[in-house]
Amino acid sequence: MEYKANETAILLIEFQNDFCKPGFPLYPGVEKLLKENKTIENTVDLVKKARDKGVLILGIPIVFEPDYKDLGDPVGIKENAMKAGAFRKGTKGAEFIDELKPFVDIFVEGKRGLCGFHGTNLDAILRYRHIKNVAIAGFLTNVCVESTARTAFDLNYRVTILKDCTAAMSREEQTHAETKIFPLIGEVTIHQDFLKKLE
Amino acid sequence: MEYKANETAILLIEFQNDFCKPGFPLYPGVEKLLKENKTIENTVDLVKKARDKGVLILGIPIVFEPDYKDLGDPVGIKENAMKAGAFRKGTKGAEFIDELKPFVDIFVEGKRGLCGFHGTNLDAILRYRHIKNVAIAGFLTNVCVESTARTAFDLNYRVTILKDCTAAMSREEQTHAETKIFPLIGEVTIHQDFLKKLE
Amino acid sequence: MEYKANETAILLIEFQNDFCKPGFPLYPGVEKLLKENKTIENTVDLVKKARDKGVLILGIPIVFEPDYKDLGDPVGIKENAMKAGAFRKGTKGAEFIDELKPFVDIFVEGKRGLCGFHGTNLDAILRYRHIKNVAIAGFLTNVCVESTARTAFDLNYRVTILKDCTAAMSREEQTHAETKIFPLIGEVTIHQDFLKKLE
Amino acid sequence: MEYKANETAILLIEFQNDFCKPGFPLYPGVEKLLKENKTIENTVDLVKKARDKGVLILGIPIVFEPDYKDLGDPVGIKENAMKAGAFRKGTKGAEFIDELKPFVDIFVEGKRGLCGFHGTNLDAILRYRHIKNVAIAGFLTNVCVESTARTAFDLNYRVTILKDCTAAMSREEQTHAETKIFPLIGEVTIHQDFLKKLE
Repeated sequence: MEYKANETAILLIEFQNDFCKPGFPLYPGVEKLLKENKTIENTVDLVKKARDKGVLILGIPIVFEPDYKDLGDPVGIKENAMKAGAFRKGTKGAEFIDELKPFVDIFVEGKRGLCGFHGTNLDAILRYRHIKNVAIAGFLTNVCVESTARTAFDLNYRVTILKDCTAAMSREEQTHAETKIFPLIGEVTIHQDFLKKLE
Repeated sequence: MEYKANETAILLIEFQNDFCKPGFPLYPGVEKLLKENKTIENTVDLVKKARDKGVLILGIPIVFEPDYKDLGDPVGIKENAMKAGAFRKGTKGAEFIDELKPFVDIFVEGKRGLCGFHGTNLDAILRYRHIKNVAIAGFLTNVCVESTARTAFDLNYRVTILKDCTAAMSREEQTHAETKIFPLIGEVTIHQDFLKKLE
Repeated sequence: MEYKANETAILLIEFQNDFCKPGFPLYPGVEKLLKENKTIENTVDLVKKARDKGVLILGIPIVFEPDYKDLGDPVGIKENAMKAGAFRKGTKGAEFIDELKPFVDIFVEGKRGLCGFHGTNLDAILRYRHIKNVAIAGFLTNVCVESTARTAFDLNYRVTILKDCTAAMSREEQTHAETKIFPLIGEVTIHQDFLKKLE
Repeated sequence: MEYKANETAILLIEFQNDFCKPGFPLYPGVEKLLKENKTIENTVDLVKKARDKGVLILGIPIVFEPDYKDLGDPVGIKENAMKAGAFRKGTKGAEFIDELKPFVDIFVEGKRGLCGFHGTNLDAILRYRHIKNVAIAGFLTNVCVESTARTAFDLNYRVTILKDCTAAMSREEQTHAETKIFPLIGEVTIHQDFLKKLE
């Protein structure tokens, strides 16, 4: 069971400074698992090697207008992001981290919600490029990564979750997604094993 | 914080015999929580009272062609459904349960995946009817109910999860969804409290 | 430039009695072109031969609740359909015509608007079945057929319009769609030439 | 029949230099109608006055990667755009024209096809902002403007086409869209009359 590189894309969800770097608002929430999972180191290793094999690397940031006027009157986790001042267009916090930026082939546009497909050109790009397999990395494992994985499954992509390239707010949530949800919709693996399966 | 009845819909996800009735293939998986939560009794009580107030009741079955030819070569949980012989068009198992059928205003068409919005006219009907609030009941709490709730949130509906009108395969999964996921995207409540908030 | 039969689907849009048969409400509007184009004879010939080659035949009816309660307060052409009493679930007028019914592999569910993809499981079924090419027939050439063709183009399907298997309300509209719009998004051909290109 | 300004958005489709300015690749195709309709002057007048009343102004550019790698192997009108070298990210041609840029509240992201909703966050933004009415201006009247209008109708927005703020490649195509298509799905008007109807 292997993947053809030219039919495979890696989806990098929200590797933005606001999540990944000390001093930015959402870092404290993911710090523990970011360190334990070595999320960034693993993802850098992943994209360098996968890109050499011809895998398409897609960056999927979430970015709001500086004054959040595109959000209307948000509730729930979107309201939290707004109150934290995160993901504002034009800020350093909204940019992809320097470690990954050079390896991104295309930045997907439009993400404003949980799912990387909702309101974005992700599916359009995947179709134009004849992609059949998506491997997902990023934040939060059980929120945006999981919403994207669920929709990818409904869209009939073959889904891989790269568990050592993700992070959640707690080990409990990370483990629940890895063991109870992802096996229903795809494969859960570490990035080295995924790389081995790439033709 | 209350809901106008004519801007509110209840989404009944997969209250089909294959899930709800002894002798049908998916019943054993949900039997424990179905009994503990009194899912069916509560949902019948819910829809009777909500419908009298003018809430729109939508039934959302999942139905495949008798030979599953619409599914292609499914994997994961869709493959499981196929192997179990569940949700085949024209069978008793695919029908909504008799207790709820008379209270359904419209049956949503097209569901073939996890999410009640994917491939269906659910969003179209909600828009045509000027619905702003959706209250979700059904199976499985952490699979189709959760996928539908996540997308409803991205579509900017105000989301309520009626926890005593749902069931999962285990108490652990039920509790995880109720406490870790749903609070990020909406309100989690029992059906009596939801009914009290309806104008 | 040929089409693999197992990667090709024919989309039969609204071959329902309400459009196709004398005495039904929308027949007078299409009668002229239905006769001139020999739409039904050509389409029957098309699906018989294409199905033998392994092409997937999808029926795409538009069906409303008997009292149109799923439509809310429609305007424009949807209001016209409602006022004409067309496409009501459970009526003879809403059924596919007997000449084509036996050749339909799967009936797509959910259509309530102009586009055959909007609110339906058409894209889901095409994906599950690994379809790359869609050939479109039906009514009205410049309304639902054209909306479906435009979206199919955006979804990156290879689009063929089978012009002798369609009908509009006037020759002017038929010709405009055939010569000014369809060439921008796909191929326009008669059904015999399409059949020749099928492997 | 009037429009509440805070429930109304103007959609400015592809007012980019590549279409609007001499010396850019797609200008020759629209030059005749751009001048006859006074498309740009009218649209500037429109957005200045509408914005003062509180209408949301959305810019909807189409932008590809500099090497079009997001397009795969395009056909039809997308291939034409690629061959013309139009709409390349980071070029002057892909930018909105200076006359309109200052009046745009939010630029919609992701457009890669005909329809302004396909692969974009347009619907998400409209929902977040509780918009019910969309008034459409831009290029080409019978291609992207029309695809966007058709989908807006299916999404149950109330649609207005601002005919003196659009342009097609020929008067024939312009007139056909204005008289044969748009009346089926919305209102066709000049911008001054639209402004009068805004509360």
